[in-house]
Formats: sequence, structure tokens, C-alpha cells
Amino acid sequence: MVNAGLEGVVAATTRLSHVDGDRGELIIGGFQVDDLAAQATFEETTWLLWHGELPSARQLEAFRSELGASRGLPAATVSLLRDCADARVEPMDALRIAAGTISLTSDDACAIVARFPTIVAAFWRLRGGAAPLVPRDDLGHAANFLYMLSGEVPDTERVRALETYLNTVIDHGLNASTFTARVITSTGSDLVSSIVGAIGALKGPLHGGAPGPALDMVFEIGEASRAEEILRKKIEAGDKLMGFGHRVYRVRDPRADVLAAAAERMFTRTGDMSLYTLARSVEATAIRLLEEYKPGRTLQTNVEFYTALLLHGLGLDVPLFTPTFAMSRVSGWIAHAREQKLANRIIRPQSEYSGPRDRRWVPLSERVDSAA
Amino acid sequence: MVNAGLEGVVAATTRLSHVDGDRGELIIGGFQVDDLAAQATFEETTWLLWHGELPSARQLEAFRSELGASRGLPAATVSLLRDCADARVEPMDALRIAAGTISLTSDDACAIVARFPTIVAAFWRLRGGAAPLVPRDDLGHAANFLYMLSGEVPDTERVRALETYLNTVIDHGLNASTFTARVITSTGSDLVSSIVGAIGALKGPLHGGAPGPALDMVFEIGEASRAEEILRKKIEAGDKLMGFGHRVYRVRDPRADVLAAAAERMFTRTGDMSLYTLARSVEATAIRLLEEYKPGRTLQTNVEFYTALLLHGLGLDVPLFTPTFAMSRVSGWIAHAREQKLANRIIRPQSEYSGPRDRRWVPLSERVDSAA
Repeated sequence: MVNAGLEGVVAATTRLSHVDGDRGELIIGGFQVDDLAAQATFEETTWLLWHGELPSARQLEAFRSELGASRGLPAATVSLLRDCADARVEPMDALRIAAGTISLTSDDACAIVARFPTIVAAFWRLRGGAAPLVPRDDLGHAANFLYMLSGEVPDTERVRALETYLNTVIDHGLNASTFTARVITSTGSDLVSSIVGAIGALKGPLHGGAPGPALDMVFEIGEASRAEEILRKKIEAGDKLMGFGHRVYRVRDPRADVLAAAAERMFTRTGDMSLYTLARSVEATAIRLLEEYKPGRTLQTNVEFYTALLLHGLGLDVPLFTPTFAMSRVSGWIAHAREQKLANRIIRPQSEYSGPRDRRWVPLSERVDSAA
Repeated sequence: MVNAGLEGVVAATTRLSHVDGDRGELIIGGFQVDDLAAQATFEETTWLLWHGELPSARQLEAFRSELGASRGLPAATVSLLRDCADARVEPMDALRIAAGTISLTSDDACAIVARFPTIVAAFWRLRGGAAPLVPRDDLGHAANFLYMLSGEVPDTERVRALETYLNTVIDHGLNASTFTARVITSTGSDLVSSIVGAIGALKGPLHGGAPGPALDMVFEIGEASRAEEILRKKIEAGDKLMGFGHRVYRVRDPRADVLAAAAERMFTRTGDMSLYTLARSVEATAIRLLEEYKPGRTLQTNVEFYTALLLHGLGLDVPLFTPTFAMSRVSGWIAHAREQKLANRIIRPQSEYSGPRDRRWVPLSERVDSAA
């Protein structure tokens, strides 16, 4: 009766998103992901999750202003990010550590969402030996993030690609980080505590922490003509093909299509299609071989494959992939925390005890030193 | 089919502790809580949870030394605690923020356990305008904590009382903070991330965040002769009596007895029995009246009632109660994180979607401003 992964257990009712793994469908705030993600700005999608409706022009303008005005980091946080950079901690740990300090000045949802990109960009520049850039409140959320990383205002196509990515991964049912945020919220704790816990969960390689390897595989293959040989070797050696298969989706992850289309558009308009073409070819070969070696398993391309391609095309280094994921998912975490609060019940499952039961205290002097 | 609190769902097998709510029994590492808690040092109980056996004299000595040597905080953490004190953040937020920075220098279980008391004491002294004290590695874990708070080496009875408290609350099945640690660990994340998430969950008033009010009630009553009148008024006004009732225990929480005995011993040997006697009298009256007003509900004294009495008797201010709880429970969190890692499966329940399904994208210019 132990269900260690809680598979099939329904732990919440939500109006935020719906994952239908059998049909390969993802609904976000009432919209099919492909309809929403490619057209909205990240500010609109965040508003949609937080308020249940798309914002009006006036509401969106006010929300953009509020986010823009909340981007700056207090000196204590910047100083801590410098310590993180010096200690070479992982970017997700730096994000967790710095996000935790938001409590020093605020516990406001806007401040949390607004500061994530500032934290990620400041840390990454500090780790590369550069000074953090002051955020620009005249740019949108996505554009400002790319600006804070590179110091250059990005072109429209890159901004559109990043908006589409951020919208696509903003929420996805009760994934482990979102569930973490709900468990913490369920005790009556504060929003920053919930978000910091969720960052910790997203860091794990079984959740958000491994979008790099899919790209590594594409680079390792290098040209389309080598795909079949290399992939056959991997499958026959029992290696998992990174970027394929998902615990929930039995058919193609709908997010993969949205990101593939966004990547194609971005690479087309920015010039060099070679990596995109290679990735498409690797994908087709991988799916064909997976069907050959594991018939009926329907191992399809998952969201990581095109995430890696898209974020790489945006100029992001691999260690930034998961923090960029967090920059999006944080809006979902906040929406779930608020939803949990509205109809709260503390989340407290049970455990089954498998240890001894009849021990009696033995004074220190009478204990045997087994390892002596 | 939605089980929002996951009540009755068994989400893990554990060798660490067993809560039998019907029998009012708590087993920790194979021992009944009353046998273990009153005799062990906190170092022994921590070792028991981490290794499955009581330590030998040699093992205990080595463990004590390792903990003693790991107590110091890096300058970055102390500076952050100063910022926390200046910003008057809550002690649990300060603990969460400072514990998160352990990643800067270590991800070692010993360092985490060793530094919790240093963080709590340093923050509390800074908040009171005093300088933090350097931890003493010649004192045990419990004694050193009391020393770091007050600057005085505590007497044996106080140390024994604190050891007993720390042992009593070190682990308690899959409570919400322990479950949080396991969910975060289940994604493959690191130990510090799991612990930081768990601190956030423990902070909530529905979990560890409200041991103060039980004591407030005792102080409000002031003398035994007033107990009945005041408690009747509270019950008739529909107020919850703080310190009574527990979601899991249908009979008396076994930890209440252990802590009552520890409190009696401490107050007896340190002189003033008046508060203890008053609390006992309030407890007896409360239980009698609860049975009268809510027959059959068996609302018994819970762990919070005697926690408050004991920690107050130790000279701790109310805001330190939950951080002191965390200083103990962190050993349990670490043990659970390790256990989760050994037989891991990502913890990912499902949600039921209750939102709209058929929305179509509407361009910004066509949206109606409902609130205009």
C-alpha cells in the first residue's frame, strides 16, 4: 500500500493548468499551450495565471510597470551573489540563496517574479568576472533578462523566442517543485519560503535540472549523416537518449512542438539554420530507432530537447538553462501557492514503519564498539 | 477522488520513527520515545537516526568532536544575519536564509546540524543588539546552544532538559516539513536545498510555527483558581484551546508526558515550581472541560503545551521556540533525505483541473477592460 512516488494520487484541484498525458494536451489558464505561448508576453501569461483572465491593456501596462520597478536587488543580495560566484556554487544554488533574501525587503509576488532574472543575470556576470548590469525598466521581462546577461538590447525575434519558452513552461500540473510550493504553503508559511523550497526541488536532475545533455548529444553527433550510427550505439549500450520520453506524456509532449516552431522561426530570421536542421534530423532518427528497439513504448521528444536548442540559440550557456526555467515556473508556483491558501488543508501523508520496535536503552559504557 | 491533505496516503517506508496515533505511541529508531529521550544526548539520538544504532563511546566521541569543530559560521553568513536582524525578519526566516548559505562552504550533514544553533543564537543576539558569541567546542550540542544565547555555561539540569526536548521532537513520521525534505530530495537535489525547504514548511503555524500561544494561555490564567472560569469562557466563545488536540494522536501525545516529566525535574531542581504547578492545573481543568463540552473528542494535551513550558523554563524567548524545534528536527530531515535517496522515486502526485478549456487567444487591442 506504499505509493512512494504518489503516482495517480490526486492531491489538489487547480484552475491553473491541465496535463493530459494520453492526448498529449496541455491547457494553461484555459488556453491550449500552442495558442497561448506563441502569442502572449510573459507578463500576460503570468497575469492570466494570477487572475484567471488575460489582462486588459490598462492592467497589462500597470503590471509591466510594477514588475519593471521591482527588478533591483538590495546591496546585501548582490554581495551574497558575489560570495556565491567566488565559491563557484551552482547557479540554482545561487538563485535559491539570493531568492531567499527577498524576505529582507519584501514578500510580494511581483518582487519575487521581477527579481529572478536580475539574480540569475547578476550571478552569471559575476561568475564570469563582469559587473552586474542595472536592470532597464523600459524593457519587458524577457527582453530585460537578455539585456542584463549580455549588455545588448536583443532583437525582436530573440525576445519573441524567449517569451514563447517562458510561457510554455510556466505551469505543468502538480510537478515536484509546484507540489513542494503547495506543501510548504499548506502549513501556513510565507510565499518566499514556498518559492525557495520549490527552487530546491526544480534543481534536481529528475525534475528541471538536466536540460543540457539533450544538446550535448546533438553536438556529439555533429552532422546528420552520423546520427543513425551514434544513436544505435547508444541504444545498444543501454544509454538513455536524453530529450526523449516523459513520465506523464504517452504521446508527444505538446510543449516540444511549440518550442520547435519557436526555434525554427528564431533560427530562420537570425540566419544560421544548421543547428536547427541537425537537431530535427537527430530527432527523426532517434524516434525511428526508439520505435525499432523499443516498439510500443512511444518514446517521443520531450520538452528538454527543444528547450536546449532554443536557449542555446538565444546565446544562453548550459548552466543557465535550469535557472531560466525557474524564471518562468516561479509565476506558476506563486499561482499555486495562492490557490492552495484559498482552500487550504495541511498536506501530511503517512509513512509505514519498517524499523525495530523493542529496543531498550543501553548506557554508553555497556555498548559494544562493533567497528573497533 | 481529490485528497487535498493526503490523509491516509502512505508515501514512504521508513526505519526512522513510527507514530501510532490510536495507541499514543511514538517509536524513534526502535526505542519508545520516553525511554530514549530522557537518557540520550542529542548527539546520540542524531547518530541513532543516521546510522540505525546507538553509537559506541568511540563513535560518539568522534561525532561530538566533528560537530564541535563544524559550528563556526563564515563571515558572509554572519553579515547576512546582521542584515536579517536589522530588517527584523522573523527568526525562522533568518534561519532559512542563513542555512541556505551553508552551500557556500559545505553540503555536509554534520555542518548543517552543527550550525543551526550557531545561526539561531547569533541572530537572536544580533536582534537584541548584542554581538554573537563564538561557539565553544568543549560543550555538547545542547549546552553550547544555551551558552551561545546567554554567555553563561548552563547547569546540568537545564542541559538535560534541553537534550530531552531535542530528542523528543527529532522525528515524527511524515510530518509536512519532513515530507517537504523528501519531495525535494526525490528530484535528485542536494541536501541543503531539502533542509531549506523543510525550514520553510516548519515555519507555518499549522506545523511548527505556533508553540507560543499555549504558554500565553497559561500566563493569561495566571493562577489555578481562575482556570475554570477563563477556560469555560474560551470554549463557549468557540476559541480553540492552544496546546490541546492533534491531527494524528487520538489519545494523549506521548511526547507530552516526556516533556512534562522533563519540565517537572528541571523546575524542581532549579527552584521555582509555581509555573509548572499552574500549568499542570490548567491542563487538568482544560481536559476536564473539553470532555464536558466536546464529549468523545478526546482532545488531549499535545506536544506544544509542554514544549512551551519547558523552553520558557530554559530561559528561551517565545520567538525562539520554533527555531529550537528546527535545531532538533533537522537531524530527522537529514535522515529522511538519506533514506529517500537510497530507494528513490520522484514524488509527483496529480491534480484535477477545474478551469476553463476552450479559450481562444484574444489580441490585446480587442480585450475589454472590465475594471475600467
